[in-house]
Amino acid sequence: MTTVSTSRTPVFNPHARRVVLAHGGGGQLTDELLRDVIRPRLTNDLLDTLDDAALLPVQAGRLAFTTDSYVVQPLEFPGGDIGRLAVSGTVNDLAVCGADPAHLSLSLILEEGLDMEVLRRVLDSVQATAEEAGVTIVTGDTKVVARGQADGMYINTAGIGLVRPRRTLSTDRIQPGDVVILSGTVADHGLAVMLQREAQPWITSELASDVAPLGGMIGGLLDEVQGIVFMRDATRGGLAGVVSDMAEQSGQHLTIDEAKIPIRPETNYAAEMLGLDPLDVANEGKVVVVVRKHKAAAALRSLRAHRLGQRAEVIGAFGEDRDGLCELLTEVGGRRIIQKPYGEELPRIC
Amino acid sequence: MTTVSTSRTPVFNPHARRVVLAHGGGGQLTDELLRDVIRPRLTNDLLDTLDDAALLPVQAGRLAFTTDSYVVQPLEFPGGDIGRLAVSGTVNDLAVCGADPAHLSLSLILEEGLDMEVLRRVLDSVQATAEEAGVTIVTGDTKVVARGQADGMYINTAGIGLVRPRRTLSTDRIQPGDVVILSGTVADHGLAVMLQREAQPWITSELASDVAPLGGMIGGLLDEVQGIVFMRDATRGGLAGVVSDMAEQSGQHLTIDEAKIPIRPETNYAAEMLGLDPLDVANEGKVVVVVRKHKAAAALRSLRAHRLGQRAEVIGAFGEDRDGLCELLTEVGGRRIIQKPYGEELPRIC
Repeated sequence: MTTVSTSRTPVFNPHARRVVLAHGGGGQLTDELLRDVIRPRLTNDLLDTLDDAALLPVQAGRLAFTTDSYVVQPLEFPGGDIGRLAVSGTVNDLAVCGADPAHLSLSLILEEGLDMEVLRRVLDSVQATAEEAGVTIVTGDTKVVARGQADGMYINTAGIGLVRPRRTLSTDRIQPGDVVILSGTVADHGLAVMLQREAQPWITSELASDVAPLGGMIGGLLDEVQGIVFMRDATRGGLAGVVSDMAEQSGQHLTIDEAKIPIRPETNYAAEMLGLDPLDVANEGKVVVVVRKHKAAAALRSLRAHRLGQRAEVIGAFGEDRDGLCELLTEVGGRRIIQKPYGEELPRIC
Repeated sequence: MTTVSTSRTPVFNPHARRVVLAHGGGGQLTDELLRDVIRPRLTNDLLDTLDDAALLPVQAGRLAFTTDSYVVQPLEFPGGDIGRLAVSGTVNDLAVCGADPAHLSLSLILEEGLDMEVLRRVLDSVQATAEEAGVTIVTGDTKVVARGQADGMYINTAGIGLVRPRRTLSTDRIQPGDVVILSGTVADHGLAVMLQREAQPWITSELASDVAPLGGMIGGLLDEVQGIVFMRDATRGGLAGVVSDMAEQSGQHLTIDEAKIPIRPETNYAAEMLGLDPLDVANEGKVVVVVRKHKAAAALRSLRAHRLGQRAEVIGAFGEDRDGLCELLTEVGGRRIIQKPYGEELPRIC
């Protein structure tokens, strides 16, 4: 046997209450954080190989690849948390491109001093949401930055999934007469987060974020209904951002009927209190679907049959004009052009 | 023509000197930052589709998928910057798994007040490094957080690439007699960054980071030489982290000869000045290769023929003991066990 000397004695306490800078150093403490806190919560065969990259069998075809970083404040809010948001957001970006969301990466930037219990809860939420969405977290990374930075934590997820043949969704395919469906109520996410962050403690609200993975609902719709033309989830920039983009990118005129847009009374009330237009506010569990007119009823049935689409409504249609504008018929009978919000209506909402 | 009214007048100034919170709001200002600053620097056919996800043709096989976030301080340092680091790190993680790095995502978390010129330089560096590595940035995301957070910027990259058939690299395949090659000098990255950050202004040094994409060199090695068993790039945790992991994961005894480890005199000097063991310090352009003994000379030739591998050396070999330990023969004739650094030797180095 070789004579050896060792100068360092690891003393990791798996019940450590807070994240320290050394957890991000890439040394033994990083390994122990991974082994004791992170990996047990995300366990699956692909992640467990512990290599620099996950190796995944793929079939030939078109692969969708997307990424988003999440900087929401607070980390936990009514209806969700940054972990559920990070998984849902990337799953939804894949799903609206016609892909079957399959594998996600998870990269954590943690603030020194973060309560380890918060990290555990967020990771449990990541895993629960991944299971709900039918995806696996296959690769990841953890960094730690100094106290005062990163507001507890930032999360990045990237995701991949195969696009099934003949699922080609594009604003180029939009034609006059095509119908626009919204899968449910608007503005719940942004206003729930904003109220949680800004409201006086004596204000109570039933308002909760709509954050949810939509892969199942969207996959079902694409399987059951022909004639789906285009889809996008209405996140940052709100419904206004999506419908104005659809009009601009297709070059067609889109008319939205304000009276048809589902909105909860408590959401409407919160928007009025904060002086915000609900159409500009982020959603994290809603999809806007463009469908051929003769398939609109079937699409509505398919969406409403899913738990997350019960309040789906036809909210508008593309017309004959080729001006690239999106017009809102207001509830009081007026008309205005819907524009993308200019800048920062609601900071740090996702 | 429909009568319309519009209440917002975009006034983006493409020469804006600083990032503002509104650039991350997902509205018109975000679009303009993308259109005027980000996308012109990263332009390629796949990115230019502007969808929620990039759609990529893939062949059947094994896909490698990896991610890393980068929080290095300062953002620019001798020999590189956070953009070159973010591309190289992900390319290298794919390459050491036997994949041909192909497509990357790029997610920016920007601090309010960041000098737009710094952002432009970092993006130019991202694109130049991607071209050098033969990869394309195909999808991305931009968030902005408040002044005082994120230290200018954090970057996340995720990457994908196909693993060629018969390239199965694993510590499970390591056998007694296998030889360990290091592709060049150690500790240049970590010490260059540390000196830039910590040193007194009157200290000048020739030291520069080794940050570089290694896909070409590694792909060449795998094409030219049979008998490559395993590889890993020696980043956080340094050479010590990689060799101790190789011994532990294979269950074999690994002996490293300190005298054979290439190190620049200026790097050695900086390590002594800062009281650091160069083996613990991060590299960002070095790979550790395990190869069958009879192929070691061929592997060394292949590496040395590449600009980034000119100083490659055989630094050790696996022995008969099955104790999972990595032992260092020191230059003065002693022996000690190499352990992974415990925690945070050098914070915010990558």
